[in-house]
Parts: sequence; structure tokens; C-alpha cells
Amino acid sequence: MRLPDFDDVIAAHQLIREYIHCTPVFTSSAINNITGAEIFFKCENLQKTGAFKFRGACNAVFSLTDEQALCGVGTHSSGNHAAALAFAASLKGIRSHIVMPSNSPEIKKKAVEGYGGIITYCEPNLQSRETTLKKISESLGLEIIHPYNNSKVIAGQGTAAKELMAEVSGLELVMCPVGGGGLLAGTALSVKALSDTCRVIAAEPAGADDAFRSFNVGYIIPSVQPNTIADGLLTSLGEINFDIISKKVDNIVTVSEDSIINAMRLVWERMKLVIEPSSAVPLAAILENKETFRNLKIGVILSGGNIDLGKLPF
Amino acid sequence: MRLPDFDDVIAAHQLIREYIHCTPVFTSSAINNITGAEIFFKCENLQKTGAFKFRGACNAVFSLTDEQALCGVGTHSSGNHAAALAFAASLKGIRSHIVMPSNSPEIKKKAVEGYGGIITYCEPNLQSRETTLKKISESLGLEIIHPYNNSKVIAGQGTAAKELMAEVSGLELVMCPVGGGGLLAGTALSVKALSDTCRVIAAEPAGADDAFRSFNVGYIIPSVQPNTIADGLLTSLGEINFDIISKKVDNIVTVSEDSIINAMRLVWERMKLVIEPSSAVPLAAILENKETFRNLKIGVILSGGNIDLGKLPF
Repeated sequence: MRLPDFDDVIAAHQLIREYIHCTPVFTSSAINNITGAEIFFKCENLQKTGAFKFRGACNAVFSLTDEQALCGVGTHSSGNHAAALAFAASLKGIRSHIVMPSNSPEIKKKAVEGYGGIITYCEPNLQSRETTLKKISESLGLEIIHPYNNSKVIAGQGTAAKELMAEVSGLELVMCPVGGGGLLAGTALSVKALSDTCRVIAAEPAGADDAFRSFNVGYIIPSVQPNTIADGLLTSLGEINFDIISKKVDNIVTVSEDSIINAMRLVWERMKLVIEPSSAVPLAAILENKETFRNLKIGVILSGGNIDLGKLPF
Repeated sequence: MRLPDFDDVIAAHQLIREYIHCTPVFTSSAINNITGAEIFFKCENLQKTGAFKFRGACNAVFSLTDEQALCGVGTHSSGNHAAALAFAASLKGIRSHIVMPSNSPEIKKKAVEGYGGIITYCEPNLQSRETTLKKISESLGLEIIHPYNNSKVIAGQGTAAKELMAEVSGLELVMCPVGGGGLLAGTALSVKALSDTCRVIAAEPAGADDAFRSFNVGYIIPSVQPNTIADGLLTSLGEINFDIISKKVDNIVTVSEDSIINAMRLVWERMKLVIEPSSAVPLAAILENKETFRNLKIGVILSGGNIDLGKLPF
């Protein structure tokens, strides 16, 4: 199978550009002072459906032939891909069936329903997700749009870093969180195509460090009983994702739960932005390793802002 | 005394433009669907120091002669003007002395100190604020910059609506909260100069309705024991402010505490923006009176985002 490349990101951007937000890039002198770095935050929490996931879902859905789209699309997702796919499907006028773990945050369930997605609940583990999705997709003839192990999804997610690189010149490093690896793979495609020198480093919760370990041993180690507040990063790496990540990503670092919460609070307090815990993971890595990142010009993708305000960690 | 007019707003904008953020204007299709209106949110929560107050403080401080600025500036403020003045003074390289009520939110005290302001605490009432400020300003020779009853401050605050009107054409209504009336007076100056038809309506908590009552009887009724979560709106109207508001504002409406909290939550959840309760008051008014505002193209100034995350109402 051909891996997606930057041409696919360019094609994705053409296809989805008029449906997505070109999200703003914000800076914070307070956070620059605290970290000693110069950070440019790409605000995908302000993307439609509240996360970068809408980019990939749009590209995947809009790339379907009419025949493929006929019976609708299906997926499993802990939340943000679910809402993104439901909204993208509604824009194309087709049905979406979403398998969600029963413990998904309330706000993410409501969002899926609000966009017209049809939810089927499953046990909160990968196996239950996959078997449940298989069952409903076979009975309904759905086109399955995997949340990250999908070339169109990866190409779509890469448009965020493409916009970031176009807006901010001279970035020395781009960082994003890693869960399934859709955002990270897409980001790496864009950054490495647009710069000879800019590095790509992903950050991951220490309590869900399957990508960190997989990256270091050279094969996929599945995520087993991950435990982190960053509920968007519980999944295992996809195969296409891992292939790209292995080739193009410079490093993956892990961070503690306390650092994630501190970083999240910093963004809320100083930048007045609501971000979900997963979004705070790269900044947490910078805060944990200030010397490593000092004086660097860094792009950070704030991946999403969907969080249950009734369950804040502070 | 000559009242400030739109020429003063233009002059203020020239003077402060390179120091302030031209804050973004955001929309939310979710909130438009809920309200039935088309709302353009001017995000002064993303302004430097986290509130529109920085505009007025900058204009006031930068307008001082070197002689006036010699011994530094002083003010009393429950928070946002305090941080704004401290930061503006630091940019001009002069000292700032801030009288703050002892019950000011912790985050606002920290912000003032962070910008180099020197805090003197007082009892949480207007009389204690004023006598404390008088005492320290006489002993130190400070130039007092009143938080709202000051023509330069009013002209500075008017630059937010000036930017909003320049960015969004055809607004039928501009709304903002009213406390002391600095933002409202400045907003009215800009809106009424830039449009023959656009109305200006302020919103105020029912538990701190001195502006509502003053507007309706035609003279200033002081705020006595106000009780609202919107801690930026506890003050009484200033005289210069009331004069402009009486002439140029179309209406002032009041809202319940529940509506303020609902509106605030809506902005946090749907727009991913951290706003303080005072900022939510205009949207609360729209939510309470949907029929009145339906189908209108409305500009809403989100006044600030400084809130203690440890004391959220949800």
C-alpha cells in the first residue's frame, strides 16, 4: 500500500479548505517567559467540532465516491473523531453511525448527537469497539472511516501543520500530542516537506506511552490499560501511522499527569483558551524539559477543546 | 468640561495601536442556532492583561506629560483596570500604585504584582477605595487614573468597538456589559459615530442594576451592596460616563445570575473561550429575550477573561 505523502496533504487542503476553519495561531508572552521558548500555538481547539479531527474526517468523507457513500459511514471513537465524522457526513448529506465507549465524556456524546450521528455504545476497550463496529457496518453496509489508521484521515490532519508552517516562518520544531498517530503522521508529512531543518517531536502521557515505546523498539506495542487524564490519547498507534512516524518523526517524549494539568491550567489562565487535557501534553513536555527547549522557535498544535466542564481537574 | 467624542477615540487608537492586540472577532454557529441571532464576539478576553481595560489604561498613561508621569500613577480597581494600569505604566517605565479591595480574586492580585504594580489593600467598598487612594496619592504625588470616570480611559475603551465596526459591516446592534460605564461610553461614542442606525444596548446583572436604574430616572443612583457573580460590574456609574450614556445609549437591560452562568458556560463549551462572568452578561440578555434579538446582526464585546479557575460556578 502506498503511504500518503505531502501531495496528499495538499490535495486534502484543496478539498476541505472551504469547510474547515483556518484556525488562528496565538502566542503568549507569559508562557514564553515561563518556558524560555518562543511558542506559536495552532488553535485547533477553535476548529469546527472543537478539534483537528474535523480536518481528517472531512477529507475522508468528501473523498468517497457516491457509491461508497450510499449507505453512510461508520467509525469507533472515544469522542472527537466521532463528532467530526458525524458533522462531515451531515455536510455531505449522508448518515453516520458511531461506536463510542460507554465511558466517553458526556459533552462528546452530546456533540455527536447534535451533528446527527447515530451512536452505538460499547465496552471501553479496543476489542469491543472493533467488534461492535464490524457488526453494525456489515449489517448496514457502512463505509468505515477509521479514526487514524486511514490515509485520507492522515492527509487531512496534516493540513493543520501546513497552515501553521505557512503562517509562521522559521519554526525550528513542531510538537503535537500522539494517540493513534493521525495528527502526528500528518504533521510530520507537512513539516518535513516544508522545511529541511524543522524537527517534529510528539508528546505522550507516561500513563499511555505505547507510541513512545513503539517508536523506540521499532514495532507497534499496543496500548494496554492506559491511564491518563488525556482521554484523547488512549488508543494504540495505527499501522500506516507508525510507518510514517518511524520514518519522519524525530522523537517522542513522555510527561506526567501533573505536568499535563499544570500545562492545561496555564493555557486556560494565560491564553484564555479552553483546551482538553490531550492538547496540553506538548506544553507539558516543554515545561518538564525547559533546558531542552529553551530559545527554540516552536509550533505547538493545540489539538482540541472538548472537555466536560463539570469534571475539571482544578 | 468637554466630553470625549469619537475624535478622541481615533486619537486614542493612533496612540495605543502598536501596544494593544487588535483582538479577533469570533462567531459560533451553535450559539447562533440557540439564540436565533447572528452574533459577532469581539474577544477582549484575548486582549493584553486579559481585558479591554488595557486599551483605556494605555491611552491614559501614554497621554501623560513627562511631568505628570514623574511620580507614577495610582488607581483603585477590583482587578482588571489594576492589571491594565500596572502593565501600561511598566511600558512607559513609571511606577503604578494600585488600591484593591481585599476580596479581589487571587488571579487579579497576582496579575497586578506580575506587571510590577504596587498594591495597597482596602475594605471592599467604594468609600474605602477612594479614601485609601487619596491618602497614598497625596503622600506620593501620584497621577490618579480613574478606572472609568476619565475621558482618556473612555476614549481608549472605545477603540474596541471601533475595531469591531471596521471588521464587521452592517451590525444592527452592539452590546456590552456596564459597570462603571467606561466600556459602554466608549462603545457608544464609536458605534454612533460610525453608523446612523446601529443601536447600543448594555446589559447589567439584576443584582447590580444601578446603571439600569440611573438610565431610566435620568440621574446617577449609586450602586449599594451589589450582589452578583460578575465581579467586574460592582461599581457605580461615573459622571462623565453617565453623561455620554444618557445621550448615546439606546437601552440598558438586566439579567439574572442563572442566565449569566448559563451564558458563560455556553461560551466556554461552544467557543472554547475562557471568559469571566462580566463578559457573559450581554449574551445572557440575548438568551433571556430571544424574541427581541431574533434575526439581528449583533456585535457583542466579550470584556475579559480573568477568572479564578479554582472558583468556577459549574
